[in-house]
Amino acid sequence: MKPYITIRSASGNCDVHIGNGILTKIAAAERLQRASAVGIVYDENTRRLFSRTIARAGAPLAGAPAIAFPPGEKHKNLSTVETIVEFFAAKRLDRTSAIVSVGGGVVTDAGGFAASMFMRGIPWVAVPTTLLGMVDAAIGGKTGVDLKSGKNLAGAFHPPASVWMDLATLTSLPRRQRAGGLAEMIKIALACDPGLFVKLERAGADLLNCAPTALEPMIRQAVLAKARLVEADERDHGARLALNLGHTTGHALEAATEYEEFHHGEAVAIGLRVAMELAAARGLLHEATKKRVEELLTKCDLPLSLPKRVSNKAILARILNDKKAKSQQIRFILPVDRFLTKAAFVEPAEIARALDAAR
Amino acid sequence: MKPYITIRSASGNCDVHIGNGILTKIAAAERLQRASAVGIVYDENTRRLFSRTIARAGAPLAGAPAIAFPPGEKHKNLSTVETIVEFFAAKRLDRTSAIVSVGGGVVTDAGGFAASMFMRGIPWVAVPTTLLGMVDAAIGGKTGVDLKSGKNLAGAFHPPASVWMDLATLTSLPRRQRAGGLAEMIKIALACDPGLFVKLERAGADLLNCAPTALEPMIRQAVLAKARLVEADERDHGARLALNLGHTTGHALEAATEYEEFHHGEAVAIGLRVAMELAAARGLLHEATKKRVEELLTKCDLPLSLPKRVSNKAILARILNDKKAKSQQIRFILPVDRFLTKAAFVEPAEIARALDAAR
Repeated sequence: MKPYITIRSASGNCDVHIGNGILTKIAAAERLQRASAVGIVYDENTRRLFSRTIARAGAPLAGAPAIAFPPGEKHKNLSTVETIVEFFAAKRLDRTSAIVSVGGGVVTDAGGFAASMFMRGIPWVAVPTTLLGMVDAAIGGKTGVDLKSGKNLAGAFHPPASVWMDLATLTSLPRRQRAGGLAEMIKIALACDPGLFVKLERAGADLLNCAPTALEPMIRQAVLAKARLVEADERDHGARLALNLGHTTGHALEAATEYEEFHHGEAVAIGLRVAMELAAARGLLHEATKKRVEELLTKCDLPLSLPKRVSNKAILARILNDKKAKSQQIRFILPVDRFLTKAAFVEPAEIARALDAAR
Repeated sequence: MKPYITIRSASGNCDVHIGNGILTKIAAAERLQRASAVGIVYDENTRRLFSRTIARAGAPLAGAPAIAFPPGEKHKNLSTVETIVEFFAAKRLDRTSAIVSVGGGVVTDAGGFAASMFMRGIPWVAVPTTLLGMVDAAIGGKTGVDLKSGKNLAGAFHPPASVWMDLATLTSLPRRQRAGGLAEMIKIALACDPGLFVKLERAGADLLNCAPTALEPMIRQAVLAKARLVEADERDHGARLALNLGHTTGHALEAATEYEEFHHGEAVAIGLRVAMELAAARGLLHEATKKRVEELLTKCDLPLSLPKRVSNKAILARILNDKKAKSQQIRFILPVDRFLTKAAFVEPAEIARALDAAR
């Protein structure tokens, strides 16, 4: 099956397939056909939803050893990764085997990280089954898990050999999770793709209600936009930093609320708001652009305001712990007009003012 | 300080420094001077022995956050690595920080693996303080930990930015550990360096008794020999496989005895014997060469025979679990005359005969 695009990077090439009902075609992936054995990683939800379809894909997926861990961000940790690699070692996978990871961002991040360390790295295939997983987590080669001090603090750059996005898997996606995925699409649009932004704006509230297949053109465009930044800067030192837009505050908010209150995309939506307030205060972003973004977020049922019970102090403390905080200076990605971004070092007091403005 | 050699690889260059009393010069390492912060990894022994000297090296090592884990192979696991990365995250190390790992192979392997995953990879500096660590573990970029199913099954290719071998640290090394390091040197010689083998033979029993500085020429030669293979084949698919000589049986023996009875080098010595028996049975190795190697191992107080209480069956079962076992076929590295090796697939029955011959 011809891929939609191939993302090229120093760590390896990644073929991206997008289509409706393509789950049963995954077994044809070249890396799986060449592998001596294949192991599958699910969470308990995705195993229940998709393992039968995956098995129908035939060899080498039918009958492959599979492990499922409990769903949710709190299981995205080193202990889950240890369970995965111990399982595949016990099942005698070896250096010539491959792993398939089926699920949302938590499953592809943790399963990909397991593949990166198993025998010091074996190939893997990502099968994102959430909108967030498709447009964000599965693209770009970042894998990893959370530490107590923060999100994604341990991991590896280990791109999947191929990514398979089956729009049919989105049918089962709860509305709130679809909204979370839309937040990342809006972020990509705001960071680097005005054309995508206009498409999202036109669809408006339909984004939440339409059939998954209607999202396909926008998913394709978001994947392409992210892929372009990843190819320019795999290791996240330059162009790719634009994708951190909304994430400095978003991660801090998630950590401050124990990863329980907000979907990642919801936290990013609030983070976009804070970044816009910072940019507006510096005169980098027109009020009109800010309003357009806020309206689109609102149409997608995404939150725009910091919750009262989370103090500025709690968020600032977490921001200092974020891995993008360069030596205690605080680096923010700010949206600027015409859908570009600017990386800037900002003072804690300036952030505090933006947090106030976003309440 | 000018390095002895620089090992070049796709994952990055590694400067190797060798000298007497160079611990206090480590702070000058370019990567440490450029780092926003430095963290140090010890085991409890090496912290006791070397932390004061390291602190005397001055900034950024003096006062750097340091963590020490209990010594021994049984602590070379993911849980130790998790403790290390959580510690450095809590100490606010970030993407621009660096890690220094001071100790034997267990410490440099686990500390290097922690560096490979922390923020998806930060630079590290290896300070091997055992002979085994110097000639083997710290050279070649392999980092990792053991799983329940076997040794080094989880890890990463993440070469240190520099390696600092201070011969003075070997003064405190127990005789049995020095012998273990000599086993790896003999392996390197047998695999690819006849000149090194002759030097080791000439030194004979002195290898165990001489001052550490007298070992320097042979350490330099072993490092150079291993570096050459690593540069030719970083990822262990071709030339580098020669270094697995003695390790298929060695790892199996260590696993079968719960990693408690044999020093790694001792298990490798017995593994060399088994590989020689296999090669001799195939007519690849002269009896005279085999005898020379056996004599040298004996002079170094290294074991030559499989212990009676470990059955062939127990060893064969572990060999099948070894990561070098390619899809249940058993790949062995065999020594052949003129100090070269040959990779060969062998049958379990053939291995069993060699195990019998090595009793």
